[in-house]
Amino acid sequence: MDRKAFLKSSGLAAAALLGASGAVQCRRTASAGGELDFKKSFRWKMVTTWPKNFPGLGTGANLLAEIIQKMSGGRIRVRVYAAGELVPAFETFDAVSGGTAELGHGAAYYWKGKVEAAQFFAAVPFGLNAQDTNAWVQYGGGQELWDELYKPFNLKPFLCGNTGAQMGGWFNREVRSLADFNGLKIRMPGLGGDVLRRAGATVVTLPGGEIFQALQSGAIDAAEWVGPYNDLASGFYKAARYYYWPGWQEPGTAMELIVNREAYESLPRDLQAIVKYACAAANDAVLAESSARNATSLIELVEKHRVQLRRFPDEALKKLEAYSQETVADIAKKDPLAQRIFDSYMKFRKGAFEWDRIGEGGFALARSLTTTETK
Amino acid sequence: MDRKAFLKSSGLAAAALLGASGAVQCRRTASAGGELDFKKSFRWKMVTTWPKNFPGLGTGANLLAEIIQKMSGGRIRVRVYAAGELVPAFETFDAVSGGTAELGHGAAYYWKGKVEAAQFFAAVPFGLNAQDTNAWVQYGGGQELWDELYKPFNLKPFLCGNTGAQMGGWFNREVRSLADFNGLKIRMPGLGGDVLRRAGATVVTLPGGEIFQALQSGAIDAAEWVGPYNDLASGFYKAARYYYWPGWQEPGTAMELIVNREAYESLPRDLQAIVKYACAAANDAVLAESSARNATSLIELVEKHRVQLRRFPDEALKKLEAYSQETVADIAKKDPLAQRIFDSYMKFRKGAFEWDRIGEGGFALARSLTTTETK
Repeated sequence: MDRKAFLKSSGLAAAALLGASGAVQCRRTASAGGELDFKKSFRWKMVTTWPKNFPGLGTGANLLAEIIQKMSGGRIRVRVYAAGELVPAFETFDAVSGGTAELGHGAAYYWKGKVEAAQFFAAVPFGLNAQDTNAWVQYGGGQELWDELYKPFNLKPFLCGNTGAQMGGWFNREVRSLADFNGLKIRMPGLGGDVLRRAGATVVTLPGGEIFQALQSGAIDAAEWVGPYNDLASGFYKAARYYYWPGWQEPGTAMELIVNREAYESLPRDLQAIVKYACAAANDAVLAESSARNATSLIELVEKHRVQLRRFPDEALKKLEAYSQETVADIAKKDPLAQRIFDSYMKFRKGAFEWDRIGEGGFALARSLTTTETK
Repeated sequence: MDRKAFLKSSGLAAAALLGASGAVQCRRTASAGGELDFKKSFRWKMVTTWPKNFPGLGTGANLLAEIIQKMSGGRIRVRVYAAGELVPAFETFDAVSGGTAELGHGAAYYWKGKVEAAQFFAAVPFGLNAQDTNAWVQYGGGQELWDELYKPFNLKPFLCGNTGAQMGGWFNREVRSLADFNGLKIRMPGLGGDVLRRAGATVVTLPGGEIFQALQSGAIDAAEWVGPYNDLASGFYKAARYYYWPGWQEPGTAMELIVNREAYESLPRDLQAIVKYACAAANDAVLAESSARNATSLIELVEKHRVQLRRFPDEALKKLEAYSQETVADIAKKDPLAQRIFDSYMKFRKGAFEWDRIGEGGFALARSLTTTETK
């Protein structure tokens, strides 16, 4: 055997050898979990709670899939399904829990019928804003509680985006005091809706696609959606007169990625890290996009579409805050884990609010001394 | 040759072969740029501007290195050097530009002597907070301008952390009006120092390690450092009476990772993505950590160490804001690129401030109606 022939044959043998050992490692990895193996690849499904390419949220799911693919060099390929394409929006949790899909992208408050305390990981009326939600989950004990909450469902959760502060909603009747919520027909989902029921409102739930018509026809007096970026895209300014702030009901709504635990644990450890930190990168990017687009969209709504901004009166906000505390405290009573999550959240909230008053809020107050307001 | 011996020898040959082909591909990749190759690995140096394990910032550099290593399955190993270990802090920019190290971790305002407009990518008095800096750089055109600014230096920059809002500093004299800055001896670096000079202060620059002694001895009347988390660790509460807010001079200071361009372009494309998104993940985590630790540290400073919080008077803040605008506008006059960066930043700032007033700020105001203040 000459040198060239030897290299050729041993090269082929080596390829066969590597192929075989790759296959062996493949099986070993699946049971041992985490072992490096650059030859393994995965085709995963991501079901979502969003309409296809829904601004910020659906596109945030697409971005996450893209980041995972790029960082893994294509070793994880993710196909993203809009709500209803593979399973309906609200079956995302069960689909990932049961393994129909490996990944699910949505917001934790959608699962309140199944896991009521999940709402703390999405949005709480008069609760944490985006920056503080990130702080609580990552450095205040939130992630550990969230893991514990989802473990019985075979799911591993990650933060992967945030809308930032939302708006208070579109109204065709002015709110001059808390009494104006009495009898108001308003579309407001989740805990915010529960709070407004305590204030005497008639709260209705409508899918996003039906809000415009309901506002325009007068079937409802008001509707909460997201913030300037999404609300401009939905054209609500054509169907309602007043755009109210602040968004007390959702001060910074977190997106989540849920991962089927067996699927996650079957990944080599570099790909586990890629899924985890891709979520962190998307968490960063989605909030940045939302902040940027809300700013330009608000200007367009006010200057081009002549939207009238209104602020809820202090008296109404104070009472809504009190109703919010009652509503949220009721969740804690359900079971010991809900109580621990509530306690952790509320303790963190106290410190965060005080620091925010002086830090971010202190600066916001200072710069407001010299900036002129958009009317 | 029996089967066992064949496998052994061909395995060795294969290893040699792979080594050789790895080397060939290495050269090919360097010119083609980005080709996938899971066999290539890199040992990189990260020089930093921070003392070893400096809370939040030095540990943020460590975290970034760890994320890169984990996601790459060890294909990029990063050794982190504290300031002075390989090069002095302020030679980080040149060291990465020249290829002494592949990575540099610091803050862009340290390079103002070389690239004055770099300051827009770190902190600007009365400028963008953390959330808005992320929005401007990622979705407002900032990244493209930053790339252009650093390209002549052979560097690719990424955001990779933020302190969030800082504090106004530690004072042994009260500030009752702008006039109290006149003659005040204060340690305040960067643009904030330039602003205070316009207000008549005697601005001194001191390294972090000398601040405590200077405050305690009365050599200086006041000193700005970071925020509660870092300031508590440095023990300044033992040397100064008043802790002032808000931190108008640094409303949210961004960390940067600078990457030597040739080193970056020599990476396979999955590793390029890993470096890029590891920065985004660190960007998310460092701000979250800062927010969480500032909250608990502020409580400790006030409740345990009886620190007296003071707010700068409105009249002083208004004048400092005016001086800040003059100071920042001066940078724009230096060259056409600085002017374009200034224009982009100021336009974004206008929209961001208006949205913040209603969004994040609107909510902060609402919740402040019912929360009690720490005295």
